[in-house]
Amino acid sequence: MSEFRTEHDFLGEMDIPDQLYYGIQTARALDNFYITGIPISKEPLFIQAFGYVKKAAAMANRDCGVLKPEIAEAICLACDKLIAGEYLDQFVTDMIQGGAGTSVNMNVNEVVANLALEILGHKKGEYQYVHPNNHVNFSQSTNDAYPTAFRLALYRKIESFIESLEELQKAFRLKGEEFANVLKMGRTQLQDAVPMTLGAEFNGFSTTIKEDIQRLNEAKMLICEINMGATAIGTSINAPEGYPEIVTEHLRNLTGIPVVLAEDLIEATCDTGAYVQVSGVMKRSAVKISKICNDLRLLSSGPRTGINEINLPRMQPGSSIMPGKVNPVIPEVVNQTAFYVIGTDMTVTMAAEAGQLQLNVMEPVIAFSLFSSLTYMENACYTLTYKCIKGITANEAICANMVMNSIGIITALNPILGYEESASIAKEALATGKSIHDITVIERELITQAKWDEVFSFENLIHPKFINS
Amino acid sequence: MSEFRTEHDFLGEMDIPDQLYYGIQTARALDNFYITGIPISKEPLFIQAFGYVKKAAAMANRDCGVLKPEIAEAICLACDKLIAGEYLDQFVTDMIQGGAGTSVNMNVNEVVANLALEILGHKKGEYQYVHPNNHVNFSQSTNDAYPTAFRLALYRKIESFIESLEELQKAFRLKGEEFANVLKMGRTQLQDAVPMTLGAEFNGFSTTIKEDIQRLNEAKMLICEINMGATAIGTSINAPEGYPEIVTEHLRNLTGIPVVLAEDLIEATCDTGAYVQVSGVMKRSAVKISKICNDLRLLSSGPRTGINEINLPRMQPGSSIMPGKVNPVIPEVVNQTAFYVIGTDMTVTMAAEAGQLQLNVMEPVIAFSLFSSLTYMENACYTLTYKCIKGITANEAICANMVMNSIGIITALNPILGYEESASIAKEALATGKSIHDITVIERELITQAKWDEVFSFENLIHPKFINS
Amino acid sequence: MSEFRTEHDFLGEMDIPDQLYYGIQTARALDNFYITGIPISKEPLFIQAFGYVKKAAAMANRDCGVLKPEIAEAICLACDKLIAGEYLDQFVTDMIQGGAGTSVNMNVNEVVANLALEILGHKKGEYQYVHPNNHVNFSQSTNDAYPTAFRLALYRKIESFIESLEELQKAFRLKGEEFANVLKMGRTQLQDAVPMTLGAEFNGFSTTIKEDIQRLNEAKMLICEINMGATAIGTSINAPEGYPEIVTEHLRNLTGIPVVLAEDLIEATCDTGAYVQVSGVMKRSAVKISKICNDLRLLSSGPRTGINEINLPRMQPGSSIMPGKVNPVIPEVVNQTAFYVIGTDMTVTMAAEAGQLQLNVMEPVIAFSLFSSLTYMENACYTLTYKCIKGITANEAICANMVMNSIGIITALNPILGYEESASIAKEALATGKSIHDITVIERELITQAKWDEVFSFENLIHPKFINS
Amino acid sequence: MSEFRTEHDFLGEMDIPDQLYYGIQTARALDNFYITGIPISKEPLFIQAFGYVKKAAAMANRDCGVLKPEIAEAICLACDKLIAGEYLDQFVTDMIQGGAGTSVNMNVNEVVANLALEILGHKKGEYQYVHPNNHVNFSQSTNDAYPTAFRLALYRKIESFIESLEELQKAFRLKGEEFANVLKMGRTQLQDAVPMTLGAEFNGFSTTIKEDIQRLNEAKMLICEINMGATAIGTSINAPEGYPEIVTEHLRNLTGIPVVLAEDLIEATCDTGAYVQVSGVMKRSAVKISKICNDLRLLSSGPRTGINEINLPRMQPGSSIMPGKVNPVIPEVVNQTAFYVIGTDMTVTMAAEAGQLQLNVMEPVIAFSLFSSLTYMENACYTLTYKCIKGITANEAICANMVMNSIGIITALNPILGYEESASIAKEALATGKSIHDITVIERELITQAKWDEVFSFENLIHPKFINS
Repeated sequence: MSEFRTEHDFLGEMDIPDQLYYGIQTARALDNFYITGIPISKEPLFIQAFGYVKKAAAMANRDCGVLKPEIAEAICLACDKLIAGEYLDQFVTDMIQGGAGTSVNMNVNEVVANLALEILGHKKGEYQYVHPNNHVNFSQSTNDAYPTAFRLALYRKIESFIESLEELQKAFRLKGEEFANVLKMGRTQLQDAVPMTLGAEFNGFSTTIKEDIQRLNEAKMLICEINMGATAIGTSINAPEGYPEIVTEHLRNLTGIPVVLAEDLIEATCDTGAYVQVSGVMKRSAVKISKICNDLRLLSSGPRTGINEINLPRMQPGSSIMPGKVNPVIPEVVNQTAFYVIGTDMTVTMAAEAGQLQLNVMEPVIAFSLFSSLTYMENACYTLTYKCIKGITANEAICANMVMNSIGIITALNPILGYEESASIAKEALATGKSIHDITVIERELITQAKWDEVFSFENLIHPKFINS
Repeated sequence: MSEFRTEHDFLGEMDIPDQLYYGIQTARALDNFYITGIPISKEPLFIQAFGYVKKAAAMANRDCGVLKPEIAEAICLACDKLIAGEYLDQFVTDMIQGGAGTSVNMNVNEVVANLALEILGHKKGEYQYVHPNNHVNFSQSTNDAYPTAFRLALYRKIESFIESLEELQKAFRLKGEEFANVLKMGRTQLQDAVPMTLGAEFNGFSTTIKEDIQRLNEAKMLICEINMGATAIGTSINAPEGYPEIVTEHLRNLTGIPVVLAEDLIEATCDTGAYVQVSGVMKRSAVKISKICNDLRLLSSGPRTGINEINLPRMQPGSSIMPGKVNPVIPEVVNQTAFYVIGTDMTVTMAAEAGQLQLNVMEPVIAFSLFSSLTYMENACYTLTYKCIKGITANEAICANMVMNSIGIITALNPILGYEESASIAKEALATGKSIHDITVIERELITQAKWDEVFSFENLIHPKFINS
Repeated sequence: MSEFRTEHDFLGEMDIPDQLYYGIQTARALDNFYITGIPISKEPLFIQAFGYVKKAAAMANRDCGVLKPEIAEAICLACDKLIAGEYLDQFVTDMIQGGAGTSVNMNVNEVVANLALEILGHKKGEYQYVHPNNHVNFSQSTNDAYPTAFRLALYRKIESFIESLEELQKAFRLKGEEFANVLKMGRTQLQDAVPMTLGAEFNGFSTTIKEDIQRLNEAKMLICEINMGATAIGTSINAPEGYPEIVTEHLRNLTGIPVVLAEDLIEATCDTGAYVQVSGVMKRSAVKISKICNDLRLLSSGPRTGINEINLPRMQPGSSIMPGKVNPVIPEVVNQTAFYVIGTDMTVTMAAEAGQLQLNVMEPVIAFSLFSSLTYMENACYTLTYKCIKGITANEAICANMVMNSIGIITALNPILGYEESASIAKEALATGKSIHDITVIERELITQAKWDEVFSFENLIHPKFINS
Repeated sequence: MSEFRTEHDFLGEMDIPDQLYYGIQTARALDNFYITGIPISKEPLFIQAFGYVKKAAAMANRDCGVLKPEIAEAICLACDKLIAGEYLDQFVTDMIQGGAGTSVNMNVNEVVANLALEILGHKKGEYQYVHPNNHVNFSQSTNDAYPTAFRLALYRKIESFIESLEELQKAFRLKGEEFANVLKMGRTQLQDAVPMTLGAEFNGFSTTIKEDIQRLNEAKMLICEINMGATAIGTSINAPEGYPEIVTEHLRNLTGIPVVLAEDLIEATCDTGAYVQVSGVMKRSAVKISKICNDLRLLSSGPRTGINEINLPRMQPGSSIMPGKVNPVIPEVVNQTAFYVIGTDMTVTMAAEAGQLQLNVMEPVIAFSLFSSLTYMENACYTLTYKCIKGITANEAICANMVMNSIGIITALNPILGYEESASIAKEALATGKSIHDITVIERELITQAKWDEVFSFENLIHPKFINS
């Protein structure tokens, strides 16, 4: 009795420690690819998705009469273990690999084959009973199994990211309600503009996140187009009649994900457009969330020499030398995550462009980029929601004082006084430091105090009505 | 009688040559911004769109009773000239400017005001009758007028680009039909894979372009959300009751573009998400078209030391030193245009992220990026269609010979012989140079000639059936 | 007598209007490439550089005895016209073209040939006397002539851009001196940090620009490595013995640019690393200048509801609706130009990566990207210098007040009081609004007023000494 | 005796498990930042570098008389443990964090303080004896300690990456020698150009890598400029006289890295230009290595339906469905790593641009990007060298046959026959399939067989001499 079993492929033989469920091709991959040091098991949804793919394929092969029911059954039971998250430590292939996913697919084929062998009472490596290629991979190619599993995992990751955005959006909306009556100056180009409410500003953040949720939901649907049954390059070679439709339906039922079979399997097999779209939408989210974090940092700047309209929760001492300093560390970490996401979009773009002829061999780095982007950004959104947004408070008095001391409120008098007179008042205010009120009502006597009070009532500042006389 | 008129704003006075329709603020912009040297008039659809915006605003102001009908009428007539493409030379502001579009908006306000003045029988500069700010810009801010005009122009540009994609897609589809019976080897990872048809390959190009047309049509709709009536920062300050809805309806009727009013005007005024989406989809198209051009260059490589499956039209001598050399210049120029587009997406991304608080001041460079990307890529698509795709011919004999000489055809015997036997045959073929046929049928006598003929019939190679015994 | 002449190449014949100096290959390029609509003549330094290249080649061919002196002489005289900036309108090829620059090289060859023909008393098109390929392009290939001309032009463009940076750096340095005694709060993470001077801040801008000038001067030298005499793919095929060294020396003497011959001509002919480096350094400059502009916009924010430490020159009215508003339009336009440059770096990156085997066919879009980046950024730097930096003034009183009202000054007491006591004081100041002085000197009596005055003397705030007791 | 100790900072108290060497601020960071899930300990060189920084600071503080020698000594001994790679598990802060590195700096300060306490016979947490801020961080700020440690680590990473490039370069050079006499066709624009040797092609790869090593060595030196003693924002506040120079010298001696003190500490503290430069040069390397991998994949394409000039080592079965297929998996994985690096450059660019005023708070994501890029790319280069380049073999006969069957060899006859006659011969060859030899020597009798043999001798094809009669 030996602790090793000998496996072979058409390049030669290798001794595999017998406790391992993976076989020779995985071992070769492990030897060939050491780039990130991060194994594919770090993305458990990906392994789970492969479990579904292999199970659906076994069921379809059985239905088509090309796979014996007992082998199909054993494969299905083996796949259930993957779906349950077991044996993750057997998925050792580096996140970035050559071979267009073949190593990952074979890693799965080998683990499933050996699990199935044990289920059937055989030993690992007795592939004459259940073979990684001839049985587990039956009617499949890496060209279809890999992208399909990738898409299933991506779909779940997007769903999960959307949930974090929904939390964030809700937090913004609640703050929008809380701050509905906090009057403040709006700013364009970092210059004083016209009054608004802090509530409207936070509602705006909520709205903008809501729109990204819509975009992600759209992008998610593109991911549902799969190419199972395409086999090599989309020709369906070696797949039995009817198999593509049957396996797709099994996959839809097993996962609850509304996958559909691509109409043009040749195109679907080499196309990475859906990933580019998802990445582009992720980038869009990153851009918008980064902009919001920039705003939060601006609005909370100070405490004494900045804008200081709002207070972020104080999370940790902010300096190793400056006592009492507290920094906006949560928005800062979210900004940085956003930059990571934007960077990965460039990686995805280049990888997608590098596809050649009937396949895009760069899909693994696309998967690595999207998986990490989605994970990091989801973490960032929860962090932002729970460690920052929910605890924000407003400095109402500071906000209000800035409004009435501002020059920008002259805009509200524009319809009454005309643009040029208003500009002249603004110019004088800037030069002399006088208030708009004093120049307009007292010095130049252009409107009455009563009219002033009407125009600059709290209600009118928050919901301006058109007053031109 | 002088050749100059004197104009003033709150920063001072300036003499403006009297033949000019633009005024002091445009003159300042001309002086302040010399970056690209490309005036906004280079994008006539943008000027036309502003004509629509100003006309719709004048109509809505009239309807709301805040603008005298005769002034509104004159403004409308002036706008009609812009819509007709007249006076383009008066739009001189540099494509990249500071001020978040104020200079462009004022350029339009001034030209329209002076045109309206002449229509009413006044002289240019007699702004007491029709004023750029008080009348032409009434109920508007750069914050709403500029992005709305940008969106209208962008909508038309996208429509126009889509037309070029439709031509391209059709050309690919026709070639797909023409080459439906040209048998060739498919390749994955630049290695021989399994047989397919050249028609299927070109159909794939058609399919992939068709999907981009769908994405562009979706992105186009995001652009239809406008913020007219938002005025400064989205507060609707200085706009009369009901104006936002009325001006939106006028704009929809005048342009035929299905614009809708944004629900959250505060958010809509600072959000650039729709541009990021459009840019991302443009990048996606660029990536996919670049991949196609890479393929075309690979497939036509040679003539003697490359793949040489297809011939591209010979457009020009390819070398100043190598006689007879002809290069795939059209795909090459399209690749480069795609890289330009991908670069501008980065510009758009950074500009969008740089928005602060109630406005994104970087919108001009977003406009410049998207306008140039759409223009160049549309030109590139027509060039590709008419100067390349339509004239492509196939080297049928070369294609066919490569199939039967290939090792990859062993895959078709996989279900009969099993993966391992097949791999052993492939290995021998590679080592010895023998053909798969000779090893399988003659040397090893694994299948009969009849079975061989069945598996490798033309029909079965093009539309493989599952044959496993 | 006809107004057309008939020219032919190996693809056929074409009638060329006889007033044109370019010939059939340029006419084909004009027909083939309509992408940007921007002709190469928009970069006059590029045409001039080609004049030098063709002249140096003619001289070297004459020296090597392979070109008759009278033909060489005529070519040189023709080139002198290009060097002088004449006949720019004959350079009509689109900035983005396929063919790896062949069309541009042939455009030059044809114009020079026809100019030389006229100099020799022949008619345009009588190429038996002076032939675009056999004479003007003698011992050359597009593979060497094009990148060499590109590099010469790029060298000049970089020099020119450096001059604009030097102006900018000097302007910052002068402001650094002017503001040397303006005390202000420094900020990290947008939160109050410790005191500094406005002068030190502007000196920092000067220093950072100075470092970029150094990087550009280094990158400029990489550009000096040329491959004249490489001919096709770097083999020197068809070039006479000794020609590469001779033509390089002629070029060095004619231009004054310290060009050197690449050691590995095969590598040099396909390598675009130097362009990537230049683009990367340009991107670095853009990043740093953009950061400075962000700072200028922050520091001048307000006037009432922002930081308001400095005033930028007021260049133009800032709003079509808000009277008196003036915006930081110059930094804004520079930010946008920086984003353009960063975008083009991505274009250059993708184009460089797309090089295949013995040539990078994407060089035209690299040239277009770098030429436009350098031009726009140079314009932006002059604009920033003359329309913004030189006119900046400081709000000294505001700056000073913020310092003494700040909490951050507690850091100066750290060595005396320890981090924890200091943090406690800071915390109380934040909670109560009290000043650091009052809590420390009066309330807690931790230090004397005399010690306070020592620590917080103007001199010590500007140049802090270590005081720990 | 408790298993927890209670620590406090100015935000409150926390119970820390007593076996931990880190304290309350690290615990807060751990709670605040969960983004990547990757702790900073994953970059051991970073922790080691911090060991050097803290040790040098303690020594300089002791030398300046502001830190008691016994405390300095204890800190130094504690730092030695970090330098030796011990206690890595105590460095738990997430790679991406807010706070501009404060959490990492405090993580180090706390661990060093507690190690020093134990060395002095105290218990962890008895900070009255050795305090993380008052002693370990003495005369420092995160603003100087963090970037200095980052730079030291980066320097070592670059050195390490350079070593991998040197291996790669050497492997290419050796192949260049091995293939010095393998005649093959060169290709431009994927079209047949002129003959060259495979050796020259591989030498070109060697040359291009050599140039990148030079660029990296230059960039490495930029990293040596440090700002120790800058303390908060570069003012040197709270650092004793002479400290900056002394600590810099200690650091130089301890590490052997030629660090120098920046001249402008204000600028140095907020500037991230050196990182942008390093990232840009890394991107350049990635672009060039990716181009080489693209070439390797092209040259080894086939085996039957591609170019097939070279054989890459066969590393693993290439398909789960196509028997015998072997793919260029090593270049493929390197391509993908290059795309990752290019993506991170974008992240670095955005992070650098986002710096505000006196600090760049985004430095952690810059560190994460550069550390991962350098690690992955170094792994990729060793993989490429040892698993691909060293085992490449040439298909000499195939290479040679393609040369003599090519049309491109007509170029060698150009000086004898002229461009137009040569083009006509090339055209006939293309149309008829005839060889250049037969048309030229036999059919048209343009040159003698002897002249043919002279021009097309092996020696002349490899090192073309100028033959024009």
